[in-house]
Amino acid sequence: MHSLLPTLRRTLGDDAVLTDAADTAGYVTDWTGAFAGAALAVVRPADTAGVADTVRLCAQAGVAVVPQGGNTGLVGGAVPDGSGGDVVLSLERMRRVRGLDPVGDTITVEAGVVLRAVQERAEAAGRLFPLSLGSEGSCTVGGTVSTNAGGTAVLRYGMMRELVLGLEVVLPDGRVWDGLRALRKDNTGYDLKQLFIGAEGTLGIVTAAVLRLFPATPRRATALVALASADAATELLPLLRQECGGTLTTWELLGRQAMELVLTHVPGARDPFDSTHEWYGLVELAAGSDDVGERLEAALHAAAAQGLLLDAVIAGNPAQRTSLWTLREGLAEAQKLDGLSVKHDITVPISSLAGFVAEVGPRLRALLPGLRLVTYGHVGDGNLHYNLSAPVGDEAALRAAAGELTGLIYDAVAERGGSISAEHGLGVLKRGAAATYKSEVELDLMRAVKRALDPGALMNPGKVLP
Amino acid sequence: MHSLLPTLRRTLGDDAVLTDAADTAGYVTDWTGAFAGAALAVVRPADTAGVADTVRLCAQAGVAVVPQGGNTGLVGGAVPDGSGGDVVLSLERMRRVRGLDPVGDTITVEAGVVLRAVQERAEAAGRLFPLSLGSEGSCTVGGTVSTNAGGTAVLRYGMMRELVLGLEVVLPDGRVWDGLRALRKDNTGYDLKQLFIGAEGTLGIVTAAVLRLFPATPRRATALVALASADAATELLPLLRQECGGTLTTWELLGRQAMELVLTHVPGARDPFDSTHEWYGLVELAAGSDDVGERLEAALHAAAAQGLLLDAVIAGNPAQRTSLWTLREGLAEAQKLDGLSVKHDITVPISSLAGFVAEVGPRLRALLPGLRLVTYGHVGDGNLHYNLSAPVGDEAALRAAAGELTGLIYDAVAERGGSISAEHGLGVLKRGAAATYKSEVELDLMRAVKRALDPGALMNPGKVLP
Repeated sequence: MHSLLPTLRRTLGDDAVLTDAADTAGYVTDWTGAFAGAALAVVRPADTAGVADTVRLCAQAGVAVVPQGGNTGLVGGAVPDGSGGDVVLSLERMRRVRGLDPVGDTITVEAGVVLRAVQERAEAAGRLFPLSLGSEGSCTVGGTVSTNAGGTAVLRYGMMRELVLGLEVVLPDGRVWDGLRALRKDNTGYDLKQLFIGAEGTLGIVTAAVLRLFPATPRRATALVALASADAATELLPLLRQECGGTLTTWELLGRQAMELVLTHVPGARDPFDSTHEWYGLVELAAGSDDVGERLEAALHAAAAQGLLLDAVIAGNPAQRTSLWTLREGLAEAQKLDGLSVKHDITVPISSLAGFVAEVGPRLRALLPGLRLVTYGHVGDGNLHYNLSAPVGDEAALRAAAGELTGLIYDAVAERGGSISAEHGLGVLKRGAAATYKSEVELDLMRAVKRALDPGALMNPGKVLP
Repeated sequence: MHSLLPTLRRTLGDDAVLTDAADTAGYVTDWTGAFAGAALAVVRPADTAGVADTVRLCAQAGVAVVPQGGNTGLVGGAVPDGSGGDVVLSLERMRRVRGLDPVGDTITVEAGVVLRAVQERAEAAGRLFPLSLGSEGSCTVGGTVSTNAGGTAVLRYGMMRELVLGLEVVLPDGRVWDGLRALRKDNTGYDLKQLFIGAEGTLGIVTAAVLRLFPATPRRATALVALASADAATELLPLLRQECGGTLTTWELLGRQAMELVLTHVPGARDPFDSTHEWYGLVELAAGSDDVGERLEAALHAAAAQGLLLDAVIAGNPAQRTSLWTLREGLAEAQKLDGLSVKHDITVPISSLAGFVAEVGPRLRALLPGLRLVTYGHVGDGNLHYNLSAPVGDEAALRAAAGELTGLIYDAVAERGGSISAEHGLGVLKRGAAATYKSEVELDLMRAVKRALDPGALMNPGKVLP
């Protein structure tokens, strides 16, 4: 037995240190099942001091630490490699809401608080915490900060980076940086919290955060529209922005094959249109007191007048609203049920998005006839989940061609000045591709930052940087 | 003559290198007149390659570089010290707008472009660039990025950090980092641009930026309101947010003595109310097509019904609007004309703001009877310009007490988890105070970042970190 284990048990208590395979299994394999590793132990501290103790003891023993929140990531960023030599540090017991300030519009929460709990606590105070994504029932504050999570309300509220006012972080040497400020403005030197947001736990461990709250938006208006082309989706964006003022919250794109997957696999999903269309847009407005229904109708009329819409259905009640959202939110599950899915989470400048779709799709299908393009995403952010499902009945063909298909997509993204990871991060899955497409100068800067903060390279090793 | 000078002249051209005292005077003294230094030379490159050459040649010669934009800073961050050994690198010749994308809502501009030119270029394209501050006719993109500038629209649009999508930066060794991405989302590793935003030129030199644009807001509604207390200003904030939806752009506070300074010193300034009040708020709504006038009236009625307003005057036309804004925008000039002004640019959590004002003012006046508290600022951001003007006719008394008064203010800010520099930065003026109030862990982190990026300590030496 590694001599670190009794020390950890003595310091944190026996129940905080898991080593039995049955206990650690859920922590060493990721949600997708694609990344399965092993750990020396899984440590579950109950507070910041416990996290600091764990990190300090591991550093003294030269043992690397893999921080983990809700383990809902898609790139293998929160699970250990197969060596069995690292400690997984789970933040799941740190679930305190430390405070909510309704005048300052802030909430202070520990890293293990689940995203939905933050949303609910805000709602109970008549406020809104706007970050919203598929895994919100399981993912945690620490994870969403460390991966700079996005989701379906980024268009209006920004990504997690823009929602964080302050952080508490355990540094790689076990010291605690108390940067839990609840300030809108603070220009007293380098904005250190930015280092840890989106760093995937490679520079330190986020233990708590001060997050921004917003006025509640109980009024919502939602529509699914049929579009003549992907072009129409980007052309509609400025019109929607102008017509809806600040109430435009969501503008999502779905391709026909994405829609078909959901209709096939998700119970209760139904196509609200009589005929099929190549592209769909899901639009949602939200406000405190504005008549967003009226606004949405006016916006859709203006869009129709410009020939940008083929058809539209507006949700008339909450059940209809849920039904429209199912078409979007059922996609992750539908792809999983359908079988092999080669996923790409890309951004291009919004003005290049339609051109990207028009050019790249046919080239992919030329490489692999019958390939199903499961295209959907946050068109208002230029972010597509540009996923590939196999020709029906031929997963082997997709498996064989996957590398070439992904290479083609990433090259096309790079040509347009895009990003090969819009919101999922790099983890293990994309660290190599990122290194390929980034400049040497940029990689040098990243390495310099890593060395400066984690000279022993003990924080989430092998993630982000190859 | 230093051997670097002929090398710089040969590389950049004679007209890019100024050494005569008459030519360099405007670059070595700051706008306030409080910081006067000397330089080996002032170098004015016309493009990024020229900046890179300058930095590389200076690095090779072991000469430090002081980057400078519009030289409008308030903390001595853009002028050299008195040694005469540093090179001032002015970005003022880099004035190209490299592109504007109306679909993607971005503009790409070089560091020397003046803020007002960005606003005007956006307006000509039917868009809005929202950053707005007193010095917008002189300050530059590079300076506003490097100081993370704020201003009067932060409440709605955020500070410069939130408006930057990409940067081009010349690193301390003369290499160029091309991070000029026009993407809403990019989670491919550390967000390097965050390092340079607000770093005051101590980690590298920003040469160009991709900035976010927004829908134009031609409709505006503006009011000055008389408030019973500073409390009322923070209590009004949630009400204004709720009633005005996303159209609330400005919510500024002015104390009576601030108002009096403007009325005394600024030609044409007039008090729109019949009687005097202790506190005033300036509120502005802006929108594309919304009837913001109606919204503002409704919001003010709701506020009056809750007893939060004593009086209000709504601007009925553009001239009246300008007249109300003069009371706010004339403050910098009025203080300068009035004489000595000891300035503090502080933030406290919004919920602590009224308490701060109520407690600290009397304590300051007890220390120096007759002291005039020129209090104004961005109450929606918790940011006060908490400035001190001398008892009438007794600047010597203020000069003598300044250190003690500032110490009292900063202690009270620190007790409330506030910031001693909300938007002006540290430069030389506040580097010492910041070091006093920051934790050792935080200072260590800042030093580690500085060493990692600028190991030779040649970028804007002595600024930010003591």
